[in-house]
Amino acid sequence: MSAEEDKNTRKAVLEESATVKEDSKEYSSSIEEVFSSKEVPSWQKQLTLRAFAVSFVLSVLFAFIVMKLNLTTGIIPSLNVSAGLLGFFFIKTWTKFLEKSGMLRQPFTRQENTVIQTCVVASSGIVFSGGFGNYLFGMSEVIAKQSTEANDAQNIKNPALGWMIGFLFVVSFLGLFSVVPLRKIMVIDFKLIYPSGTATAYLINSFHTPQGAKLAKKQVRELGKFFSFSFLWGFFQWFFTAGDGCGFVNFPTFGLKAFENKFYFDFSATYVGVGMICPHLINVSLLVGAILSWGIMWPLIDARKGSWYSAELKQSSLHGLQGYRVFIAIAMILGDGLYNFSKVLGLTLFGLYRQLLRKDSGTVLPSSGRSSPVIPPSLSYDDRRRTQLFLKDEIPTWFAITGYVTIAIISTATLPHIFPQLKWYYVVVMYIIAPLLAFCNAYGFGLTDWSLVTTYGKLAIFTIGAWAGASHGGVLAGLAASGVIMNIVSTASDLMQDFKTGYLTLASPKSMFVSQIVGTAMGCIISPCVFWLFYKAYSDLGVPGSEFSSPNALVFRNYAILGVEGFSALPKHCLTLCYVFFFGAIVINGVRDAVGRKWASFIPIPMAMAIPFYLGPYFTIDMCLGSLILFVWQKVNRAKANAFGPAVASGLICGDGIWILPNSILALAGVKPPICMKFLSRRTNAKVDAFLGS
Amino acid sequence: MSAEEDKNTRKAVLEESATVKEDSKEYSSSIEEVFSSKEVPSWQKQLTLRAFAVSFVLSVLFAFIVMKLNLTTGIIPSLNVSAGLLGFFFIKTWTKFLEKSGMLRQPFTRQENTVIQTCVVASSGIVFSGGFGNYLFGMSEVIAKQSTEANDAQNIKNPALGWMIGFLFVVSFLGLFSVVPLRKIMVIDFKLIYPSGTATAYLINSFHTPQGAKLAKKQVRELGKFFSFSFLWGFFQWFFTAGDGCGFVNFPTFGLKAFENKFYFDFSATYVGVGMICPHLINVSLLVGAILSWGIMWPLIDARKGSWYSAELKQSSLHGLQGYRVFIAIAMILGDGLYNFSKVLGLTLFGLYRQLLRKDSGTVLPSSGRSSPVIPPSLSYDDRRRTQLFLKDEIPTWFAITGYVTIAIISTATLPHIFPQLKWYYVVVMYIIAPLLAFCNAYGFGLTDWSLVTTYGKLAIFTIGAWAGASHGGVLAGLAASGVIMNIVSTASDLMQDFKTGYLTLASPKSMFVSQIVGTAMGCIISPCVFWLFYKAYSDLGVPGSEFSSPNALVFRNYAILGVEGFSALPKHCLTLCYVFFFGAIVINGVRDAVGRKWASFIPIPMAMAIPFYLGPYFTIDMCLGSLILFVWQKVNRAKANAFGPAVASGLICGDGIWILPNSILALAGVKPPICMKFLSRRTNAKVDAFLGS
Repeated sequence: MSAEEDKNTRKAVLEESATVKEDSKEYSSSIEEVFSSKEVPSWQKQLTLRAFAVSFVLSVLFAFIVMKLNLTTGIIPSLNVSAGLLGFFFIKTWTKFLEKSGMLRQPFTRQENTVIQTCVVASSGIVFSGGFGNYLFGMSEVIAKQSTEANDAQNIKNPALGWMIGFLFVVSFLGLFSVVPLRKIMVIDFKLIYPSGTATAYLINSFHTPQGAKLAKKQVRELGKFFSFSFLWGFFQWFFTAGDGCGFVNFPTFGLKAFENKFYFDFSATYVGVGMICPHLINVSLLVGAILSWGIMWPLIDARKGSWYSAELKQSSLHGLQGYRVFIAIAMILGDGLYNFSKVLGLTLFGLYRQLLRKDSGTVLPSSGRSSPVIPPSLSYDDRRRTQLFLKDEIPTWFAITGYVTIAIISTATLPHIFPQLKWYYVVVMYIIAPLLAFCNAYGFGLTDWSLVTTYGKLAIFTIGAWAGASHGGVLAGLAASGVIMNIVSTASDLMQDFKTGYLTLASPKSMFVSQIVGTAMGCIISPCVFWLFYKAYSDLGVPGSEFSSPNALVFRNYAILGVEGFSALPKHCLTLCYVFFFGAIVINGVRDAVGRKWASFIPIPMAMAIPFYLGPYFTIDMCLGSLILFVWQKVNRAKANAFGPAVASGLICGDGIWILPNSILALAGVKPPICMKFLSRRTNAKVDAFLGS
Repeated sequence: MSAEEDKNTRKAVLEESATVKEDSKEYSSSIEEVFSSKEVPSWQKQLTLRAFAVSFVLSVLFAFIVMKLNLTTGIIPSLNVSAGLLGFFFIKTWTKFLEKSGMLRQPFTRQENTVIQTCVVASSGIVFSGGFGNYLFGMSEVIAKQSTEANDAQNIKNPALGWMIGFLFVVSFLGLFSVVPLRKIMVIDFKLIYPSGTATAYLINSFHTPQGAKLAKKQVRELGKFFSFSFLWGFFQWFFTAGDGCGFVNFPTFGLKAFENKFYFDFSATYVGVGMICPHLINVSLLVGAILSWGIMWPLIDARKGSWYSAELKQSSLHGLQGYRVFIAIAMILGDGLYNFSKVLGLTLFGLYRQLLRKDSGTVLPSSGRSSPVIPPSLSYDDRRRTQLFLKDEIPTWFAITGYVTIAIISTATLPHIFPQLKWYYVVVMYIIAPLLAFCNAYGFGLTDWSLVTTYGKLAIFTIGAWAGASHGGVLAGLAASGVIMNIVSTASDLMQDFKTGYLTLASPKSMFVSQIVGTAMGCIISPCVFWLFYKAYSDLGVPGSEFSSPNALVFRNYAILGVEGFSALPKHCLTLCYVFFFGAIVINGVRDAVGRKWASFIPIPMAMAIPFYLGPYFTIDMCLGSLILFVWQKVNRAKANAFGPAVASGLICGDGIWILPNSILALAGVKPPICMKFLSRRTNAKVDAFLGS
């Protein structure tokens, strides 16, 4: 470096620090201050015709994508981000065009964007929870024939357009009404995160950020940078995924032994981002749960193979290790859910009681439509403004309850006509328990971004199937019951996530609710039609080895076949362990509430602990990495980390999210990745090398 | 975020910018200002007894490591960093101990550290250039028997301790004297980079940085961070390298087709760091060369297979594609080398002529011992101080020339006694050409960090072997000749790199030279002894399939067998292409000098272009990535990039460099990596899956 260069260097350093100083005058980490110049339209105005038109187009597009995935791998990714982005793209193009031709009457707002996103997610949610890749198709003859048991007429119901649409209509709206009264508790009081929902909101906000705000601009740039990175990373990974077990998602980061127990870093940008958005406690809870289950319990139980359960069972059999995984996870989730549900219910009743006594208001209450809670002045500007708007448009509790009961009655009357095996009293019992399950899933989803819809579905198969019994068409009853529960649970958690997104984009809860209703209705018609198209176009639908083999349909049917045997079908000691974890979850929650906030932040949350029980620790590793990155960043520079952390995390989540779209299109077009990145042990590798050499 | 947190964030941002402002006052990117309080010992004092004692211990250790690598894979990594670090560690422990007991007379300086590094590198360099894994062992009976040709007595010479030590002593010192007069031109006038040497100097400087300098401390921290990262990355990579073709070094980043043509990113932290240290022009030149050769020429020539050369040849045969690669690369390097050598010689003679005329001094001259060149005041403090000290301790040119001629005479008289097949006039011719080759390699090494010693060795095999002819023991003559050339070329470039390290650590050129002489002498004794140990301990040394199969020995012997056939053995049009590239290199250099500095920075350097011709583009990709990282960093924040870039690059190079040590120890201990990360095409993968499934 010459003397002159050296001088320039120093000068540049000085200038840079001056810039930072200047910058900080305009630093404002408040998003809503940036948006304060923009008027928020009334909830009716948020629901525009063009929004629903675009939603319909996107719904049809996504229905094809999700249906294809349903019938091939059965793995359905979250489409919030794609919906938000494409919605923005469509309407923006349209409004720009109108603006240029001077015909624009209503500008495109972020609230309208959120409405589209909500509607599309609701509609494509039905394509999944409608069970075309699992329970519903599992009832058909083509799947039933692949099993030696229970393939008689009373356990078979072939797909037909009429009953599928009817079935979806009577079960899909219940979930929405079941959690509406809880929205204030979940979003404002519990401050649940809904990482994907939050990331989508950030993305939508960033699209609509007015010019001039320096920090916001920087945040948008940061989001854009990590969005691109995450997208390109997803694209890059794709090339190495020819075949099963290939690619970065199967990287044995901690060795092959750890990989067998699902301890590995799977290079998912999404979950690293999710980990950055989730509080550290959640990530630590997940890790504790992962170590407890996959690190200790499952290996120990696996060592009892042959004694506790038959050694000849398949990996996926609920009679074996999988049974422990599924049911212990459910027990723990239910324990936590029941505790929190009771707590909320207790506080509500106590509040109502106080209200009646003193005619006073302002406590932590589910919004009743009449109370106008005081917003604590300690909140930031953002939180105050969001809370204010979130509470402005109330959906009365009486409306939600009336809606739920009405639909439940219609549904109870209708369902036994569609499935004679499903007695009306089964349906009643399910509708009594369903709100608890919906609460559990919406709560867990909000904490960790994992919606365990199929897990609840399996619980329904097991309980209702066993109740009906093998001789009374229990298999079909179980499958139908799982459909009922899955629809409720899935729509409920989607709605709550949309409430969160709406909260962060100042979209009204009312417009979210209406949009979700409209989207659900669209889904109830679009998805059976799309399935029907596939069903008629591919005669080998569901046949093993064919392109659309629908593997999960057979898995679900097999669960149902097991389920009819009842609890006796569970492996040894499984029920005991379930009790232990059920009550354990309640006790831990009780302790957390008893010791006060300071100590509670060191006690893991049972709901979060339970999620890796079933899924495995791999995503936990991703999330803990995200948590670690944020932690180190906060140590190095807290101000920057707080200002840019959510933007980076949202970028990571959204980039990976949007990659799903080209990825699915490649899959639909039959373009296959060219390379397999494989991981072999040294011994296997020597064998393979010998094989390839010869 | 609550209102309070929000306020804190803004406050923190303000505070941070204030800190940066404060920092910049103490910002100084001058290393030598930081060291200005430390006295530089005289060159005699830099050469301490303890330094040579430690060097001896390390030399023996490294001799075992390098010998083992010689006899197994034949791939020898650069050991500069390990030598610098271990030298520091040993002496520092010793001086700390003495300091505590109050007996320390002479403090440990960075100059002494550099002396150790130089000595150890010189010594372990001989273990490689001594040819125990290639030409020297290739003369033995055990290797000769593996070939059907030329295994008669006159083409065999079995190893024996006596002649090996003698041979090394008469050939190993020539290289040192051959380039000594060029050190000012290479280091100061040409400002050659020697990336590994520079990185080692940074590391040594960082070890000895006095307390208190803020920027230096930050640089050391940055270096430490990337050092650890690079080391751990090397360690992590190791786990996935069970078997050939496994691991990150075989990552087909741009697809399998590109990988076949060696276009891939091999995740080497070293070369990313090297790319950050090298000027952008070098990296671009490498890339241009890589695309020209592996992207265009080789595929085109490959398409002529069967017409230009026999299609049945092995990949490594010089009769085939490999012949084009090796000889075109050499032609281009020689063209560039000859041009620059002539230029230097011309300028020198012109300068001497002017000096004689005007009795004036101060021009760009090889230091003659009497001139005291003026240091341009436009240089930075660092450059001025370094240049001053570098020019203070002169090694007279007459001394270098006398030394070279004396040793050459002794050598010419001795060598035909050791190898009767190697006539004295072959030796004389070699010693006339050797300084040019030494210059070429030292120059190319300085530009790109690649020392192409074996390439020059192959050139010698080919020319001398052909000259001697098959009937006069040409195979043995060729092997011996390659030994002579390799020793000269290798020690010359090592010495020049050490001069660069010395320049950057203020170590005297004299002490570097003496240290190199001592190290070389050590190497001439240690390495034959270590080889003798292996030779006596393992009776199956050199036998194919055994642990120490010494694959390169056979390769070299095969080259020699081909070589005796002369230029007629070259594939079709190869010689024509060689002429084209030889003169092309001269023309490009001429144009570069003619158009002036501004335009020259857009014309690639032929020397750099030629290196990937032979090696393949993979390391070029690494280096271009490093270049790109630095480029973007400079765009974002030039001051920071300039202040921390070299530290980051050095950290990357050194961390990977030191990993070689534990890696070699693991290999010596027989610990093998557990996993193979393999890359298969979709078709092969399907086959492998079927094979593993059955």
